[in-house]
Amino acid sequence: MARYDRAITVFSPDGHLFQVEYALEAVRKGNAAVGVRGTDTVVLGVEKKSAAKLQDSRSVRKIVNLDNHIALACAGLKADARVLINRARIECQSHRLTVEDPVTVEYITRYIAGLQQKYTQSGGVRPFGLSTLIIGFDPYTGVPSLYQTDPSGTFSAWKANATGRNSNSIREFLEKNYKETSGQETIKLAIRALLEVVESGGKNIEVAVMTKDQGLRQLEESEIDGIVAEIEAEKAAAEAAKKGPARDA
Amino acid sequence: MARYDRAITVFSPDGHLFQVEYALEAVRKGNAAVGVRGTDTVVLGVEKKSAAKLQDSRSVRKIVNLDNHIALACAGLKADARVLINRARIECQSHRLTVEDPVTVEYITRYIAGLQQKYTQSGGVRPFGLSTLIIGFDPYTGVPSLYQTDPSGTFSAWKANATGRNSNSIREFLEKNYKETSGQETIKLAIRALLEVVESGGKNIEVAVMTKDQGLRQLEESEIDGIVAEIEAEKAAAEAAKKGPARDA
Amino acid sequence: MARYDRAITVFSPDGHLFQVEYALEAVRKGNAAVGVRGTDTVVLGVEKKSAAKLQDSRSVRKIVNLDNHIALACAGLKADARVLINRARIECQSHRLTVEDPVTVEYITRYIAGLQQKYTQSGGVRPFGLSTLIIGFDPYTGVPSLYQTDPSGTFSAWKANATGRNSNSIREFLEKNYKETSGQETIKLAIRALLEVVESGGKNIEVAVMTKDQGLRQLEESEIDGIVAEIEAEKAAAEAAKKGPARDA
Amino acid sequence: MARYDRAITVFSPDGHLFQVEYALEAVRKGNAAVGVRGTDTVVLGVEKKSAAKLQDSRSVRKIVNLDNHIALACAGLKADARVLINRARIECQSHRLTVEDPVTVEYITRYIAGLQQKYTQSGGVRPFGLSTLIIGFDPYTGVPSLYQTDPSGTFSAWKANATGRNSNSIREFLEKNYKETSGQETIKLAIRALLEVVESGGKNIEVAVMTKDQGLRQLEESEIDGIVAEIEAEKAAAEAAKKGPARDA
Amino acid sequence: MARYDRAITVFSPDGHLFQVEYALEAVRKGNAAVGVRGTDTVVLGVEKKSAAKLQDSRSVRKIVNLDNHIALACAGLKADARVLINRARIECQSHRLTVEDPVTVEYITRYIAGLQQKYTQSGGVRPFGLSTLIIGFDPYTGVPSLYQTDPSGTFSAWKANATGRNSNSIREFLEKNYKETSGQETIKLAIRALLEVVESGGKNIEVAVMTKDQGLRQLEESEIDGIVAEIEAEKAAAEAAKKGPARDA
Amino acid sequence: MARYDRAITVFSPDGHLFQVEYALEAVRKGNAAVGVRGTDTVVLGVEKKSAAKLQDSRSVRKIVNLDNHIALACAGLKADARVLINRARIECQSHRLTVEDPVTVEYITRYIAGLQQKYTQSGGVRPFGLSTLIIGFDPYTGVPSLYQTDPSGTFSAWKANATGRNSNSIREFLEKNYKETSGQETIKLAIRALLEVVESGGKNIEVAVMTKDQGLRQLEESEIDGIVAEIEAEKAAAEAAKKGPARDA
Amino acid sequence: MARYDRAITVFSPDGHLFQVEYALEAVRKGNAAVGVRGTDTVVLGVEKKSAAKLQDSRSVRKIVNLDNHIALACAGLKADARVLINRARIECQSHRLTVEDPVTVEYITRYIAGLQQKYTQSGGVRPFGLSTLIIGFDPYTGVPSLYQTDPSGTFSAWKANATGRNSNSIREFLEKNYKETSGQETIKLAIRALLEVVESGGKNIEVAVMTKDQGLRQLEESEIDGIVAEIEAEKAAAEAAKKGPARDA
Repeated sequence: MARYDRAITVFSPDGHLFQVEYALEAVRKGNAAVGVRGTDTVVLGVEKKSAAKLQDSRSVRKIVNLDNHIALACAGLKADARVLINRARIECQSHRLTVEDPVTVEYITRYIAGLQQKYTQSGGVRPFGLSTLIIGFDPYTGVPSLYQTDPSGTFSAWKANATGRNSNSIREFLEKNYKETSGQETIKLAIRALLEVVESGGKNIEVAVMTKDQGLRQLEESEIDGIVAEIEAEKAAAEAAKKGPARDA
Repeated sequence: MARYDRAITVFSPDGHLFQVEYALEAVRKGNAAVGVRGTDTVVLGVEKKSAAKLQDSRSVRKIVNLDNHIALACAGLKADARVLINRARIECQSHRLTVEDPVTVEYITRYIAGLQQKYTQSGGVRPFGLSTLIIGFDPYTGVPSLYQTDPSGTFSAWKANATGRNSNSIREFLEKNYKETSGQETIKLAIRALLEVVESGGKNIEVAVMTKDQGLRQLEESEIDGIVAEIEAEKAAAEAAKKGPARDA
Repeated sequence: MARYDRAITVFSPDGHLFQVEYALEAVRKGNAAVGVRGTDTVVLGVEKKSAAKLQDSRSVRKIVNLDNHIALACAGLKADARVLINRARIECQSHRLTVEDPVTVEYITRYIAGLQQKYTQSGGVRPFGLSTLIIGFDPYTGVPSLYQTDPSGTFSAWKANATGRNSNSIREFLEKNYKETSGQETIKLAIRALLEVVESGGKNIEVAVMTKDQGLRQLEESEIDGIVAEIEAEKAAAEAAKKGPARDA
Repeated sequence: MARYDRAITVFSPDGHLFQVEYALEAVRKGNAAVGVRGTDTVVLGVEKKSAAKLQDSRSVRKIVNLDNHIALACAGLKADARVLINRARIECQSHRLTVEDPVTVEYITRYIAGLQQKYTQSGGVRPFGLSTLIIGFDPYTGVPSLYQTDPSGTFSAWKANATGRNSNSIREFLEKNYKETSGQETIKLAIRALLEVVESGGKNIEVAVMTKDQGLRQLEESEIDGIVAEIEAEKAAAEAAKKGPARDA
Repeated sequence: MARYDRAITVFSPDGHLFQVEYALEAVRKGNAAVGVRGTDTVVLGVEKKSAAKLQDSRSVRKIVNLDNHIALACAGLKADARVLINRARIECQSHRLTVEDPVTVEYITRYIAGLQQKYTQSGGVRPFGLSTLIIGFDPYTGVPSLYQTDPSGTFSAWKANATGRNSNSIREFLEKNYKETSGQETIKLAIRALLEVVESGGKNIEVAVMTKDQGLRQLEESEIDGIVAEIEAEKAAAEAAKKGPARDA
Repeated sequence: MARYDRAITVFSPDGHLFQVEYALEAVRKGNAAVGVRGTDTVVLGVEKKSAAKLQDSRSVRKIVNLDNHIALACAGLKADARVLINRARIECQSHRLTVEDPVTVEYITRYIAGLQQKYTQSGGVRPFGLSTLIIGFDPYTGVPSLYQTDPSGTFSAWKANATGRNSNSIREFLEKNYKETSGQETIKLAIRALLEVVESGGKNIEVAVMTKDQGLRQLEESEIDGIVAEIEAEKAAAEAAKKGPARDA
Repeated sequence: MARYDRAITVFSPDGHLFQVEYALEAVRKGNAAVGVRGTDTVVLGVEKKSAAKLQDSRSVRKIVNLDNHIALACAGLKADARVLINRARIECQSHRLTVEDPVTVEYITRYIAGLQQKYTQSGGVRPFGLSTLIIGFDPYTGVPSLYQTDPSGTFSAWKANATGRNSNSIREFLEKNYKETSGQETIKLAIRALLEVVESGGKNIEVAVMTKDQGLRQLEESEIDGIVAEIEAEKAAAEAAKKGPARDA
């Protein structure tokens, strides 16, 4: 089987593109990332690699704006991410200039996924080692949306989804606990999902919230800590409640 | 034999192009798709991958318009599909602009198959992992048609055909049950064919209907459910009818 | 020996170009095709792959016009055929435009064979998996001709010849039975030759006839059936005749 | 595993880019380099390879200006470094010319990291065997910063960091001993960190200091020797202090 | 040794270019060809492959004009031959147009050999599988000449020479029997040489004769048959003459 | 390990670029070369391969001018040297034309080293098999300098250095015996260093001397012989002096 | 070791370029060639391959003019030689046109060697299988010179030298017997050298003589025969003289 591995753009006998699947491994090694779409709020949360002690906390954000109304989080190779983000931002600006209108979230998602596909079908390049979560509000209808793209160049729309390290656990949590939320509840759900796989709370996660009117806002660490505390309190209460009747018995 | 696998554009000693055949494997792993041509109606139906629970139901359609009078469904690599669809749409528009007339269904089919062929004869690229079903009405004669293309770049015209996962079973069903139909009957035949390989009805299939005057219309899930119910009722009745006389005996 | 297989444009120690020979294998797997040149009529006949039951009978013809006075039939990869045919047609048109005269049959044969040769001597491409039979009338002298080209880019002129599946049997038949014919007799000879390797007559063969004045005409299935019946009657009669005297004895 | 090594831009089955990791080995073989950010001062220090006896002491500096307010030190292949430095300097100048404003430190860091990434995703080239430390002052806010880039094209901001030979030991030292410093204290901290892995003091290290107003200043060997002496005196005193009470006992 | 085979333009340790030698094998498998230079006549003769029974006798000549005063015969790959011949003809025409004078025989021989050499020194192509015999009269001095080129791109001038299948036998014959001839004697010598390796006379050989004033003339089959008969008669007479005296003894 | 050897621009797992190191082997096989920088004089000396007896003594000099004030000596592949020298000379001229000022020694050294680096990072080429010693005077300050470049594209400034065959021995000699010299003493030091590895004196070495005012001057063989004699006399005297006291004892 | 053989432009671990060395093998298999520089005459002599009996004696000369005052002889692949010669001749003409002066012998030697070097450092081509001897007179000073180039692109000036088959023997002869000669004596020395390795005299060698005023003159076979006879007579006399005293004893 090994002999198909090296060939960049070639199918294996059972129809697989191994390079794309290996790139997915790079994604699976990347930080966990989660996205949750509420009725008026879309939230992205990412695990912060236990940052080296002296790393600058103002350092590079993992959740970035592509345009006023669109943001993106990645799992995978950071250096690859920058390439995709730059090209997406340029496309957003150039769309505004030429069409005189902002891009829709789907448009820029298609653009990013298209770039990713191109790197799976031509010789002399490797796929991007990158999955992305893209959130935003439709500039015309104000409808929020959440998309995911992967190294093959596939994309899909979601109510809530995760990628990167342990994303299966997060997804399972989301499938069990998702309900339509809004405002603060949407943020809480995203953070609860991340806490499934990230230990020790606010210091290790980064959360950004987008609303139609205010665009993207990065939560302060203290703000995250507050919500984490709230979540843990609720959990403890629930636990207690569960045990409570048991005790009574 | 293995040594021909890696070579992109090279014949094997018995005249095979393995990369093209491996790409067909990717198609065989893709969702089932069916096309049925009626006298006044052409129908495309595709299996929806048991969608992740939180996936957005408004998400990317598998049946798409290339132009007002032409639509396409794919089996295979989704990311490859987008590339082909984009280029076909651009060709449709550019044909309207330069020739001031819409493309015919055969014209755009040739165009798509031509692109697919090109990726089997040049170095440095891999074939598209994609088979397509293309439906449409001739813009001049109003005659409906159904075409299929495959990774080798071959195309052919059909009364009814299927591709993707389990397409052999669907094709067998169609060969046994096809007769010239129109309107609702054409839709029913397409759905019956899909139900051969897709379980649990309407939720897992996507159906789109094209008529000369109204262009493409995606069926609502409820609408599909209705027809599925109808089909099952008829089947039960037929079953009963078959057993009925038996009981009498 | 195997090690020369993968190299695209390289000679083997005994002076073979394996890729060209493997492409010939693809031709040998293709449908049988026959060409017969009469004094006033040239005929092409091809085996139709036992078409899938639901395939559109109006579907893609295997015998196509390159120009009013020139037609072509292929054996081998259908998708490759379209590429060659398109380029040949464009050459015919562009010749009319620039030289203000139609191409001769030899001219376009050279052009097609030249394209085929080019794909055997450059890196990064594979040969065309295609042999062609080209018929036509000289636009100046009205002389009919029949050419054959193969994947190496060789071409040659014939009174009658065959290519594709079982072409050896057809060629043997032609060598035994060829005589200069005209009109209906030429058509009959071509069909008789095809019947050597194709079973069950008219449904499975496609025949096209070219005359100087009327250009190419595709025979109707019924027309072919008529001739097939005639041929079988004659055969039976001949058989009978052979046995007749024997019985008498 | 070895079979992925040679392929330039290809993923291994577990999602690694080996060429990038091997380039990191070249970095790990390079001279140690350290960067420390103070409140008003940023310092770069590099180990000087025990210079050949006759090498010109005026010889090529390892710490270089990219612009008046930005400097860079490298670990890895010296010849690769020059290429990166040249291109970064040209970008600084061209930015001044076209935008009529100096680049920010982050801007040029992104530019350098972007170049490094490009050499990990295209065929026909190898990654740069180079990690860089970049220091500078924001031309508008006067805020000092320290960045690091590596062969993958990743970059990050730091309070203090090291790269090259034995950089782990230096980093450990920095993590234990870092506190916010200014002026002379910042310089001392950088030199103390370097002395962790470099023997025999000032002759073997090169130190450059940048302040907002005076730009980059390379320390004289004598100046470094002075600080080294100071550091050793303090160390001896601390040692003595530690032992002192012991003796008293 | 085998490992040098595949490399297109690479020397083997003992200084051989294997691809060129393998191309010579293709020449050795080709039809025999002979050239004889007389004082006022130059003759080319080639073996005709036992032509398929139905091949068109008007079919492609193996001896072709490059210009009025220059002709060429080939041994090797027919499709390659056409490429060389086309380019040589274009060169002849373009020389007439730009220099306003016909090419000399040596000029066009150099041109052809130069093309052949180019395909032995660049990557991505294979050598021409072709040796050529070129005859002609100098357009200024009227001196006849005969050149040979081979796949390496070497050329040389000859009084008489052969190439292709069994060319060694022909060459031996020529070396034994060559004397300066003119007119009909030159033709006879060429045919006698060919008959050394070709059986059954005129039907299987093609002969063309060039004189200064009349240019190239292809001999009719009957004409060849006549000469063959003459040759055989002479041979029989000689045989008889040889035996005659013996009998007398 | 062998498997990284063939790859042109690829790192080995331990961070080496083998092609660069193999190119250094070619340098180590080349003639010895030495450079010595004095206060007012810079000297280059190279070993002359025991020239074939009939080689023209006026033959190609190994020490060449790049510009009036800059000269270069090489060790390694002579043919590669010419390429580098030509490009460096053109750069010198073109710098004069465009900037209207001569290049500095460092500028042209950077240029040469930059060319060498480029051939280590791109596919399809090999590194230059060449190390260079470059001497010159700054056209503005008149300061003399000596640089060395190697196949990796690294360069460095020296008081005295050697390259090529046995350069380690020469370097050791220089490290032991170097002191700041001027005029004739500088020349003598260079020749003494060369004599460490070259036998039989003036006939086998080539020496060129550059001063600020007179530019480069190639020493005559007789002149070298004189100095060699002088050196040997001094050596003998020193030897005698050493033994002298011993004898006295 | 074998694994470096195929790589075109790659160093072996001990710093060799094998392709260049293999090309030298092709030279060593080529005809012997000799060059001798006299005070007023420069002579080139080459061995003629025992020409096939029917080869045209007017056939391609092995010693050719590049310009009126410059000539060249080659050993190695004849087809490669033509490429080099053509390009050198074009350079000579174009130099005359643009600089309005003839090239010097060194200039064109550098040009040829430069071409040869280029084919050793780029991918996709092989080195020229060719060594050359170049003779000529300086167009300004009238000084005669003799250069040699080899497949690596190295060149050097000589009083007398040889290349090709058995060139070592010729060189040894020259080293033993060379003295400064002029006119007929120079020619005789060249022929005597060739006779060391070529049997049977004038028929198998080609000699050309260049003088400042008369340019290149090819010696007639009879002329060569005369000199050969003279040489043999002298040799016999010398032999006799040697034996004479012996007999006397």
